[in-house]
Amino acid sequence: MTKARPSTGSGTVTIATIADEVGVSTATVSKVLNGRLDVSALTRARVEASLERHRYRRRARRQPTGAGQIDLVFHEYDSAWAMEIIRGIETVTVPARIDVVLSQLDGRHRPPQEWLDAVVARRPRGVLLVQCHLTEAQRRQLQRRAIPFVVIDTDSATSASVPTVGANNWSGGLLATRHLLELGHRRIAVISGPQDVLCSRARTAGFRAAHEEAGIPVDPDLVRHGTFYVTTGHEHALDLLNRPDRPTAIFAGSDMQAMGVLRAARRLGLHVPDDLSVIGYDDLPVAAWTDPALTTIRQPLRDMAGAAAQMLLDLADKTGPATSRIDLVTELIVRETTAPPAHLRPTPGADPEPPSRPTPR
Amino acid sequence: MTKARPSTGSGTVTIATIADEVGVSTATVSKVLNGRLDVSALTRARVEASLERHRYRRRARRQPTGAGQIDLVFHEYDSAWAMEIIRGIETVTVPARIDVVLSQLDGRHRPPQEWLDAVVARRPRGVLLVQCHLTEAQRRQLQRRAIPFVVIDTDSATSASVPTVGANNWSGGLLATRHLLELGHRRIAVISGPQDVLCSRARTAGFRAAHEEAGIPVDPDLVRHGTFYVTTGHEHALDLLNRPDRPTAIFAGSDMQAMGVLRAARRLGLHVPDDLSVIGYDDLPVAAWTDPALTTIRQPLRDMAGAAAQMLLDLADKTGPATSRIDLVTELIVRETTAPPAHLRPTPGADPEPPSRPTPR
Repeated sequence: MTKARPSTGSGTVTIATIADEVGVSTATVSKVLNGRLDVSALTRARVEASLERHRYRRRARRQPTGAGQIDLVFHEYDSAWAMEIIRGIETVTVPARIDVVLSQLDGRHRPPQEWLDAVVARRPRGVLLVQCHLTEAQRRQLQRRAIPFVVIDTDSATSASVPTVGANNWSGGLLATRHLLELGHRRIAVISGPQDVLCSRARTAGFRAAHEEAGIPVDPDLVRHGTFYVTTGHEHALDLLNRPDRPTAIFAGSDMQAMGVLRAARRLGLHVPDDLSVIGYDDLPVAAWTDPALTTIRQPLRDMAGAAAQMLLDLADKTGPATSRIDLVTELIVRETTAPPAHLRPTPGADPEPPSRPTPR
Repeated sequence: MTKARPSTGSGTVTIATIADEVGVSTATVSKVLNGRLDVSALTRARVEASLERHRYRRRARRQPTGAGQIDLVFHEYDSAWAMEIIRGIETVTVPARIDVVLSQLDGRHRPPQEWLDAVVARRPRGVLLVQCHLTEAQRRQLQRRAIPFVVIDTDSATSASVPTVGANNWSGGLLATRHLLELGHRRIAVISGPQDVLCSRARTAGFRAAHEEAGIPVDPDLVRHGTFYVTTGHEHALDLLNRPDRPTAIFAGSDMQAMGVLRAARRLGLHVPDDLSVIGYDDLPVAAWTDPALTTIRQPLRDMAGAAAQMLLDLADKTGPATSRIDLVTELIVRETTAPPAHLRPTPGADPEPPSRPTPR
């Protein structure tokens, strides 16, 4: 810091300013900016530090059409969920003749620095991050090179300065729970994703809000957290359904969790929806084909991904990053796994055992 | 052709030979080989034609590590199936620090020429094709640039000159059908993929072979074809199960088809496996979580994809293309959807109706 000459403002900092300060050629600064690897690690670090001090930003340039690639990075692949995202992105990238370079972070929510360095070296047109986030320094590393990025995340509380496309989780939790309350359920369990993930908390908050507006208390024992996978749904459902005061409905955090719930119910000899109502989340293609077909909250994953890809290409084509946050609407899709609880059905007491075989639908 | 000077053999053809013949500079020939777009279309076509005439092949060069990308192209995305392939490829590409560029061909089995031209312009380390195939001319276009390619295909009859990783479909069909015959089934239906896709034909041939070795005739009305999706399984199963002489078992062409079969059975009030046995194909993660859990033929998709990616990197690192064909082993995974037919169960006649509710498992 001591050697840095006072800069008259980030707008006036040029490659020459940086070269002068570090004592290297402008060609070397340019190489570092372009992510070239034929510069020693020490020099790279010194140039990068000087760029950082001066808040250097390259002016956005139009990149040659056709040569464009974007990077798509998932925090992890969640099978059908990730494939819906990929399909949504391709609705935008294929007509624009943009190639998609694919990565995943093995479940990490922060990309490691070496991953970002490799991305920068390739100089993609932009970076799409799915449920993962850059550090402040990483964001500036991209901004200095005029490489825009957009986050696809259903987590509804990312920083306003980060362009993000998501869906409204709170409203999803509210819609699902209202549906169950309107059917007459009073003991409703919720199984959500990890407690440290905001989208899980937002959905659970929507669940609570629906109870509040109906004047029904929430039993804290019926609020569960875990991963979004089948096993979490299965394990929590076994535990919940073995209670003497078992819930009559379960709102799962994902369609995959809901499949685990359906399986647990079957293991325990409970019929869905007669003995237990189940709601999923996401509306993956498989939700229409489970037995019974799953009532679920539709997250518009393809639309979200398409909107994010379009936002990224728009950012890449213009000077300076726009700030935007889009939340797409979640929707209740009623199929076969929800019904009024047993004590509210038309002929209460006429048949103490629920009908033992599903009737043809 | 008339202008071509006699070549003394493909080994002696150099860039200078081509430049001389076409009447352009060696730099221009080099640009065409490197897929650069700053050469007129006419010149490119003339250079390409000359390269083709001389069967020109660039000697393989080691590409700089870290700068490597491979192209991965699907004929279409089939949700969980495609994701298994991607996961398998990443077991090899992530440690090797190779990036994966993703495409799909909207269901076409032949990549369009403009797609391949764009790939060549990027000079990837190699190309992985999933259930799609290059024309002879397209293969030579890659070979001239020392860009290797490997096909991942369960179709077991690709040309011996094309490096391919697959799985043994005939054996998969045989294993599934033997299992059903051994349980005592005699009227077994098969729903396979499209009739013009070899893997479908190979599985159906395995189905027939199992019948032959057991001395049981195949009813041609019970052999069906369609897509690999849920809807095909659902439609054929509804038709098959509404017959007065309905089959007691259905062997589906994919786990997704099998989900359609399970749903059709439920619509008709048939219990699986008491009234109907069902076998899927693929062993996708979802197969373990259907209700009841699906008996299926495991295709080692991740292993296949990993083997293909490794084969591709090996080809890229060596001089000249090796020829190889690897078929991985398919395996029967018995879960809950297969059982002896009703008339062979321990207490025949004691309960003319099959048990109406599944017992806890």
